[in-house]
Amino acid sequence: MGWKDNLTVILVETRNPLNIGAAARAMLNFGFTRLTLVKPYDVAFREARSAAGAAAVLADAEVAPSLDQALGEATLVVGASSPQGRVFRQPRRKLEEAAALLRAHLARRSAALLFGSEKFGLSNEHLSHCHWSLRIPTDARCPSMNLGQAVALVCYELARPAAAPPRPAASKPAPAAGQLDRIGTRLAAVLDSSGYIHPRTRRSHLLKIRRLVRRLALSPGDARVVEGMLRQIEWKLGQMPISTGAE
Amino acid sequence: MGWKDNLTVILVETRNPLNIGAAARAMLNFGFTRLTLVKPYDVAFREARSAAGAAAVLADAEVAPSLDQALGEATLVVGASSPQGRVFRQPRRKLEEAAALLRAHLARRSAALLFGSEKFGLSNEHLSHCHWSLRIPTDARCPSMNLGQAVALVCYELARPAAAPPRPAASKPAPAAGQLDRIGTRLAAVLDSSGYIHPRTRRSHLLKIRRLVRRLALSPGDARVVEGMLRQIEWKLGQMPISTGAE
Repeated sequence: MGWKDNLTVILVETRNPLNIGAAARAMLNFGFTRLTLVKPYDVAFREARSAAGAAAVLADAEVAPSLDQALGEATLVVGASSPQGRVFRQPRRKLEEAAALLRAHLARRSAALLFGSEKFGLSNEHLSHCHWSLRIPTDARCPSMNLGQAVALVCYELARPAAAPPRPAASKPAPAAGQLDRIGTRLAAVLDSSGYIHPRTRRSHLLKIRRLVRRLALSPGDARVVEGMLRQIEWKLGQMPISTGAE
Repeated sequence: MGWKDNLTVILVETRNPLNIGAAARAMLNFGFTRLTLVKPYDVAFREARSAAGAAAVLADAEVAPSLDQALGEATLVVGASSPQGRVFRQPRRKLEEAAALLRAHLARRSAALLFGSEKFGLSNEHLSHCHWSLRIPTDARCPSMNLGQAVALVCYELARPAAAPPRPAASKPAPAAGQLDRIGTRLAAVLDSSGYIHPRTRRSHLLKIRRLVRRLALSPGDARVVEGMLRQIEWKLGQMPISTGAE
């Protein structure tokens, strides 16, 4: 059993079967599988069970008649609550910090994570079971989240890969100088034949071309492709019956 | 206008009105408002518009007949892609790193973020418009995410508070999508006339060319130069007396 099996997600009085299905799928997306439903609407739960995509989680989901009974052996209970209309008496933590604390707890012990109904969220009664609550830092103009999306965000943040800072991008392999020279030479030949390069300014054109080719950030593979394209165009222009290039 | 207004979320060929509504609401939850729908199913879009919760975003949403037209002036195009069944030829970045790069770009310039249809995701054709793609680090046993949840996760990660107001990217300015399209079209015409492109494999060649053009990291000035070169070569090849191009 990994640490993820120490987490039970508890949906309290969920009404919409699509939300139950979406929550279950989001859990699975991030490797969590233990789901308990407290007083779900019977129809909602039956419909959700028949939905595809999260069958495994829903088949094993427990149903509890009350929150007390759902909490079982959890040694940490956290409520995910939307910000409006509640008086929070417990500490509230922003998702990022909350996830770090939960993860640390889950390493050895079990925890429960509560989500309220679509319409009312978690009541003060529900929240009184919680050690603390977490809030997702939403925009003040539209603070309330869809249930399935909230579950997805919390599971994502919990499963976050050790939150290692992103590594600096490794520098890509680059073509050899000789290859870039060949590309520059072929491009110059094509532009000569096309009349793009005027003889009087040819010298400065050649320098510009050489710099341009080096700015292109070509990979060795792309450099081969570009060289092949130029070779073909050069050959084609050489088929012209009379030279109408630069005089 | 804040940096969040520089992001356009583009949903390509979305079928389910609930998903359009859920995506719009998730955007608003994190302060993003610019939404474009490419070829949505008519009924889906009408139903979504009538859904509550994200009215402002949906009322202002644009509808585009093709992805090209949706991309407009975006100087960075990123595809959100699920991991299965595609051969990724562009760089792929994990959500966290991707969000940091996108944020830096959005500090000064516009970007587009693409999500594919529920059933098929983004096609290789769609992905060929992208500079790179991002992936959400889901569990291998259930990798595919619900569309609305994926939009929520990416918007959350972009709006992540730690990131504060983004620092402007040190990276160079980039050409608009339309200019890269013109370069790709002219290059294809030149390669057609030269016999480089064989009619039987033309489709896959066009995708390769589109991706190649986007890998070149052209500055807007270099893009103008390259376009001018191609225009001249195209003109010259058009002077050929008889077409001896690809049969």
